[in-house]
Amino acid sequence: MEEKYVYFFGNGKAEGDATMRELLGGKGANLAEMTNLGIPVPPGFTITTKVCVLYFENKGKYPLGLEEQVGEALGRVEKIMGAKFGDRENPLLVSVRSGARVSMPGMMDTVLNIGLNDSTVAGFIKGTNDERVGWDSYRRFVQMYAEVVMGIKSEGISPFEQAIEEKKREKGITQDTELGPKDLKELVYRFKEIIAERSGGKFPEEPLDQLWGAIGAVFRSWNTPRAKSYRQIHHIPENWGTAVNVQAMVFGNMGSDSATGVAFTRNPATGENIFYGEYLINAQGEDVVAGIRTPQPLNRASKKKPEQTSLEEAMPDVYKQLSEIREKLERHYRDTQDIEFTIQRGKLWMLQTRTGKRTAAAAVKIAVDMVGEGLIDRETAVLRVEPNQLDQLLHPMIDPQVEVRILARGLPASPGAATGKVVFTAEDAVELSQGGEKVILVRIETSPEDIQGMNAAQAILTARGGMTSHAAVVARGMGKCCVVGCGDLKIDYGKELFTVGDVVVKKGDYITLDGTSGKVILGQVRTITPSLSGDFKTLMDWADSFRRLGVRTNADQPKDAKVAREFGAEGIGLCRTEHMFFEGDRIDWVRKMILAGDKKGREEALNHLLPMQREDFLGIFKVMDGLPVTIRTLDPPLHEFLPKADEEISALASQMGVSFDELKAKVEGLSEANPMMGHRGCRLGIVYPEITEMQTRAIFQAACQAIKEGIKVLPEIMIPLVGDVNELRLQKEVVDRVGKETMAEQGVEVDYKVGTMIEIPRASLLADQIAQVAEFFSFGTNDLTQMTFGYSRDDAGVFLPFYVEKGILPHDPFQILDQEGVGQLVEMGVRKGRKTKPDLKIGICGEHGGEPNSVEFCHRVGLDYVSCSPYRVPIARLAAAHAALKGK
Amino acid sequence: MEEKYVYFFGNGKAEGDATMRELLGGKGANLAEMTNLGIPVPPGFTITTKVCVLYFENKGKYPLGLEEQVGEALGRVEKIMGAKFGDRENPLLVSVRSGARVSMPGMMDTVLNIGLNDSTVAGFIKGTNDERVGWDSYRRFVQMYAEVVMGIKSEGISPFEQAIEEKKREKGITQDTELGPKDLKELVYRFKEIIAERSGGKFPEEPLDQLWGAIGAVFRSWNTPRAKSYRQIHHIPENWGTAVNVQAMVFGNMGSDSATGVAFTRNPATGENIFYGEYLINAQGEDVVAGIRTPQPLNRASKKKPEQTSLEEAMPDVYKQLSEIREKLERHYRDTQDIEFTIQRGKLWMLQTRTGKRTAAAAVKIAVDMVGEGLIDRETAVLRVEPNQLDQLLHPMIDPQVEVRILARGLPASPGAATGKVVFTAEDAVELSQGGEKVILVRIETSPEDIQGMNAAQAILTARGGMTSHAAVVARGMGKCCVVGCGDLKIDYGKELFTVGDVVVKKGDYITLDGTSGKVILGQVRTITPSLSGDFKTLMDWADSFRRLGVRTNADQPKDAKVAREFGAEGIGLCRTEHMFFEGDRIDWVRKMILAGDKKGREEALNHLLPMQREDFLGIFKVMDGLPVTIRTLDPPLHEFLPKADEEISALASQMGVSFDELKAKVEGLSEANPMMGHRGCRLGIVYPEITEMQTRAIFQAACQAIKEGIKVLPEIMIPLVGDVNELRLQKEVVDRVGKETMAEQGVEVDYKVGTMIEIPRASLLADQIAQVAEFFSFGTNDLTQMTFGYSRDDAGVFLPFYVEKGILPHDPFQILDQEGVGQLVEMGVRKGRKTKPDLKIGICGEHGGEPNSVEFCHRVGLDYVSCSPYRVPIARLAAAHAALKGK
Repeated sequence: MEEKYVYFFGNGKAEGDATMRELLGGKGANLAEMTNLGIPVPPGFTITTKVCVLYFENKGKYPLGLEEQVGEALGRVEKIMGAKFGDRENPLLVSVRSGARVSMPGMMDTVLNIGLNDSTVAGFIKGTNDERVGWDSYRRFVQMYAEVVMGIKSEGISPFEQAIEEKKREKGITQDTELGPKDLKELVYRFKEIIAERSGGKFPEEPLDQLWGAIGAVFRSWNTPRAKSYRQIHHIPENWGTAVNVQAMVFGNMGSDSATGVAFTRNPATGENIFYGEYLINAQGEDVVAGIRTPQPLNRASKKKPEQTSLEEAMPDVYKQLSEIREKLERHYRDTQDIEFTIQRGKLWMLQTRTGKRTAAAAVKIAVDMVGEGLIDRETAVLRVEPNQLDQLLHPMIDPQVEVRILARGLPASPGAATGKVVFTAEDAVELSQGGEKVILVRIETSPEDIQGMNAAQAILTARGGMTSHAAVVARGMGKCCVVGCGDLKIDYGKELFTVGDVVVKKGDYITLDGTSGKVILGQVRTITPSLSGDFKTLMDWADSFRRLGVRTNADQPKDAKVAREFGAEGIGLCRTEHMFFEGDRIDWVRKMILAGDKKGREEALNHLLPMQREDFLGIFKVMDGLPVTIRTLDPPLHEFLPKADEEISALASQMGVSFDELKAKVEGLSEANPMMGHRGCRLGIVYPEITEMQTRAIFQAACQAIKEGIKVLPEIMIPLVGDVNELRLQKEVVDRVGKETMAEQGVEVDYKVGTMIEIPRASLLADQIAQVAEFFSFGTNDLTQMTFGYSRDDAGVFLPFYVEKGILPHDPFQILDQEGVGQLVEMGVRKGRKTKPDLKIGICGEHGGEPNSVEFCHRVGLDYVSCSPYRVPIARLAAAHAALKGK
Repeated sequence: MEEKYVYFFGNGKAEGDATMRELLGGKGANLAEMTNLGIPVPPGFTITTKVCVLYFENKGKYPLGLEEQVGEALGRVEKIMGAKFGDRENPLLVSVRSGARVSMPGMMDTVLNIGLNDSTVAGFIKGTNDERVGWDSYRRFVQMYAEVVMGIKSEGISPFEQAIEEKKREKGITQDTELGPKDLKELVYRFKEIIAERSGGKFPEEPLDQLWGAIGAVFRSWNTPRAKSYRQIHHIPENWGTAVNVQAMVFGNMGSDSATGVAFTRNPATGENIFYGEYLINAQGEDVVAGIRTPQPLNRASKKKPEQTSLEEAMPDVYKQLSEIREKLERHYRDTQDIEFTIQRGKLWMLQTRTGKRTAAAAVKIAVDMVGEGLIDRETAVLRVEPNQLDQLLHPMIDPQVEVRILARGLPASPGAATGKVVFTAEDAVELSQGGEKVILVRIETSPEDIQGMNAAQAILTARGGMTSHAAVVARGMGKCCVVGCGDLKIDYGKELFTVGDVVVKKGDYITLDGTSGKVILGQVRTITPSLSGDFKTLMDWADSFRRLGVRTNADQPKDAKVAREFGAEGIGLCRTEHMFFEGDRIDWVRKMILAGDKKGREEALNHLLPMQREDFLGIFKVMDGLPVTIRTLDPPLHEFLPKADEEISALASQMGVSFDELKAKVEGLSEANPMMGHRGCRLGIVYPEITEMQTRAIFQAACQAIKEGIKVLPEIMIPLVGDVNELRLQKEVVDRVGKETMAEQGVEVDYKVGTMIEIPRASLLADQIAQVAEFFSFGTNDLTQMTFGYSRDDAGVFLPFYVEKGILPHDPFQILDQEGVGQLVEMGVRKGRKTKPDLKIGICGEHGGEPNSVEFCHRVGLDYVSCSPYRVPIARLAAAHAALKGK
């Protein structure tokens, strides 16, 4: 039997349905589904994606039998519409549209009004009783056909638009709408001349030629460079192909009993269960979009001004019918739909239905409401909200009602919005904010020395740097709004101002940042803080009931830990001790420690740091009462704590009472060619065990004190950058020894663990050995990604965006975990680690711990928990629930 | 039945033999073996290593039955010697010596003359008829026992030595030998007082107490910190334990019919088949070592001066007996032996035999000779020469006969020796050497800009840098003598001189470097160039007949390629194209290319480089006629080609006609935080495909030209730093396209391959995908080691030596491939690559390709070839043969 290439739909019965998306494409499958539901859909047929594949395999030849099947289906359409394709008296017009398995918006071609020619146009005019509509449709068709099918395109203004402009000049008019039927008719002929001039070919008068031309063009549009690169970026296989939908045209511009509109079955911004949409009387679909006329609201409930005329009022019967369809579609699809409709002379036609896009707030409300309405279950509700979307809900946002003056745009490094006075130094940020001012720290780029200022500021703006620059990473960790790499900013530290073009912004002037979009706005703008209770809480509780994966947070300060705990964090997965080293006068002691000539000198300086670190840990233990706290020993190379510029070195030298030359030489001696792979992590604690000793002592002293105060403390001491079990063994010896001493001194028992980060490829390869000593693993996927790819996060900005853009890599592996490469090492680490210790607790504390795809991967490979920055904790909780539900 | 802990030997029959090394230790097994061969060995017995293990397991308690077995064996010794342990009249004296499975020279303890006390000493004197020998032996024994067994040791001068000094002062004499029997007797008593003062204990007069004290001390010496750290460094398991050998004492100092000596069965320096050794009449073993008396040659053949008296002349019968033993031992062990003997009153006793250490030249000659003599087969001969030893044979060496003045010592970065005039700049090196002078380039450190100067110089000396510094790596690549990190050198570039202490060496002064030992020598010294023909060639031919692994070379220039081919290289495994970029005025064009603002500018500069690169390749193709040549496309980050110092930037700016500020900004813009993981390797060729295009064009133009000249060309184009198959795919597209174009232009077909380096961990993890595109793999284990460990080779010098010293890592992984970590990635790469392409050709081109352990690993995991620097090619050939023979 001949293969079926064409699927008819119309008059309440379709050969396809919604399950046949692979064969019929998304659009075709939904048109068929609606037809089957008894919803009025203009009849038509879908040519399958299979035909597209065969078309390319056979170098532009259609499979045998297709022509016959198309002819037969077209006959059925004619019969339903009571019109005939190519008939002079009562011509049927059709549209030809693409429709792939997944939406590729704007990537492929469409041709409308097929079937018009010099003779059918008369019949069409007779039917519409509108000469202008007739010639205008014909004019548009010829132009569209020439451009899409015949490939007549120009770099500059199209020759067809030029011809229209000439005609308007000739007539002394300015608007297209002022062109009369005669003008339009003349333009049709002029267009045909242009086609002949440009292509040497002829516009096909024969409707069937037009139809096949359009079908071929739509198939070919699957392979335009634009579509190909879209697929590469979105990982859509080349061999899927597109379907083609041929459908009878209906017209919303046939008088005051005609209309066209778009609607959402619920409010897509708020999620309210109100039918929400716009329409235009006597108009075509493109008029709604073009914005020349102002669309009217769908119903009384959504009228904003009394003078508006809703569809409910203008065409009550049609509105009632549309409302019923809305109900039917929601009941059927069990989700909010985005629909398009046309009313042709009082008759309602549905042209499209698809899942409606919605804001995060709407997504949450709709999901929770629909459970209440019995439409969906809780699992489905949880799956309906995209984890990443929650980001919108967790940060303050700019009030969308307010008009703003955008000064510049940078990279949206950390979401949220904030208003404040501009300052240019970390010191000013601290000082002004202590005086109660809200400030925004503006720097060319930030460095670890700016930490306190960043902490004090409402938001951070930098002129240089990418999504993984210091400013971006730290700000995300702090859950603080941040815009980076804003190249238009010219910062003059000396004059304490920055300029963007002609605009000068001085220290103390107000600006507002939108870290979600990367906008820099002049002046103060009102921001909205969303609520985390109500529906949000309900949904998150459901999510928690489904997930297996624990969610912890990366937090270095009690303040951050508190936020994270409120967001549902179940412990701290990474507390970086070095961030504490920059506070106040600690940095002086850190520097003295680094520059000491011997162990004695180092120990002296460390003794000064000990009580400070102890207080840090005590603060965190108190906030995390009852929950585990993973503390990482010192990680960065020591030169990161030293000044770099000569004047700073000079200042430090006089403070320390040594000569500039001596200090400069020491600073240079510590500098490294590749600090990322240099003397850092446990390599420091091994060469200078006194550092690990001090940190351990601080942890145990704090823990003992907390326990004495009745707090439940579960410290997990984590040794960074381990590549060999001997490194961990030596550091664990130090921790156990100092811990034992301290517990004996204090007379308190602390329930602690010692484990390691797995962030060096070799650690994954030898995880079986490392697990002999480690009591837990935590994957540091930031560094693991750096080493596995050989990409320096600080330098990859030169080529990584290029790689992603060209599709060499599917995405930035620092943002989304590279499952096929780095993921192998994670899996191997888990497998080998658990081979040695079957109950080894394993987590992840790289930035990937808050990225939904990566969280899903962590669930799949059997991790116990993920740890992420405080503001991503809810995202991780939801992603973990998704992972568990999808894994079922 | 009770376990056997004690193995007796003596009187021609032993309970053990040479195969029982694990149980009896090396020394014990060989004493047993000699006894069984009928060779006269003082009788004795070996307490097994098992006893040592049990001794430690049971906290210093011996296993049941040991005492009885020792008593029984001691009785057998007494019977043979006709003397009794502890007997006043005719006392037996014994020695107690350690003996582990493998030699741990000087690490463990020995006690001699056990059995002497206040009453037996009289009998001993009676037997020896020499009062002085008697009291001297007793005095020595008390001191040795006190120190070794009773642990009476001092930081400064030992109290026993102090007592001797006092005695000499008292007597007004200066030499120990002037002390008479009475003095020595008094010293014995004084020593016993010291023991009582120091330890509160008593020297044991009871011989059996002495014996058991000594046995326990030798067992315990297995666990001294010194011995433990030796084992850690040499990877000797802790649980092996040592055996203890108790043996009857014999004395070479009982008059003119007594003697003691050491010998080699063949000359250990040259390998000549001549019995070679030294002896002393009326002396003890330690006298030969102490150097107070000058030992005499063994036989007439080895007499150097007529007045010497050989053993052959002095004791012809004993010499004859010794010669027969020599023959017997060589025939038995089938290898050169290092023996110790003592003649006690005309009777020959053999005290030790072991495999004789030898120079590389001797090793080769002995191996080849022994095949000729029918003692061993060719396979054994090949296994007898350690591959690393060959290094001595491949480079010029300092004539060992010449006395030299050592000025300073640095790290022996690249072997060989060279003499020349000191120069301080690459330019001077080039200029003087063009004038026919031999020069040595002396720099604080070298950089890629010095390449031409390094090439022109005989040798390189630097004040800074480690074994993997730029100077060291490049010099090894060039097979050029190099000493680095010579910290005593104070170089003053301005004055063109360097100083070491008071010595000033000016430009033009002669120095000599020994890159094998790291010595810097003042003045000119004669060097010897060893021959690579004769026995060496014979042995290497045998090695080649056994090996499976191919051996290629890393060479960037025709000159190096030629040397390598002479050394037996079967192709080039790595030709780095960037080294060519520094020659002559090329660097100017390279810089213009880098600093060009657009593709057009880059292409213009590349067009100037094209003919130069073409000539480079043509030269190499000619030398390697018929052999494959693997050419790697540009690898280092572009900023490596740019000047760094302000004055150089200024010079370049004026040369290029741009402002200093502009150029400085560009140079800074290109600088990277972690260049090792930055914009380099194929990441360059992907962002700037025109670079790969130029290099490909140069390769194909050269290949076509060579083919036209009748040369067989097999280019293999290698894309560096691939981490994803898409990178390789894009670069291969460029190579294939440009190759096709060029071949069409030239009308010549070139048989070429495109492959990749596997040097990023991700490439190993995804080798199955990469093999879909790659036509060969070459493991770049230098970078793979960096990334797998997260060690920057440039920075690891701060902690890596510490790691190796502390035993955290067994060795520097940049010198010996880390088989358990990095090796997993190599194995994985091989396995996954061959899963996709079963016949995929795979090699290695890191520096490990010339390191014998690593070569063995490469053989084991199934690589096709190794590639190493020219001077290591013979080493790799021999190591490959060893691998194949051991794998059988």
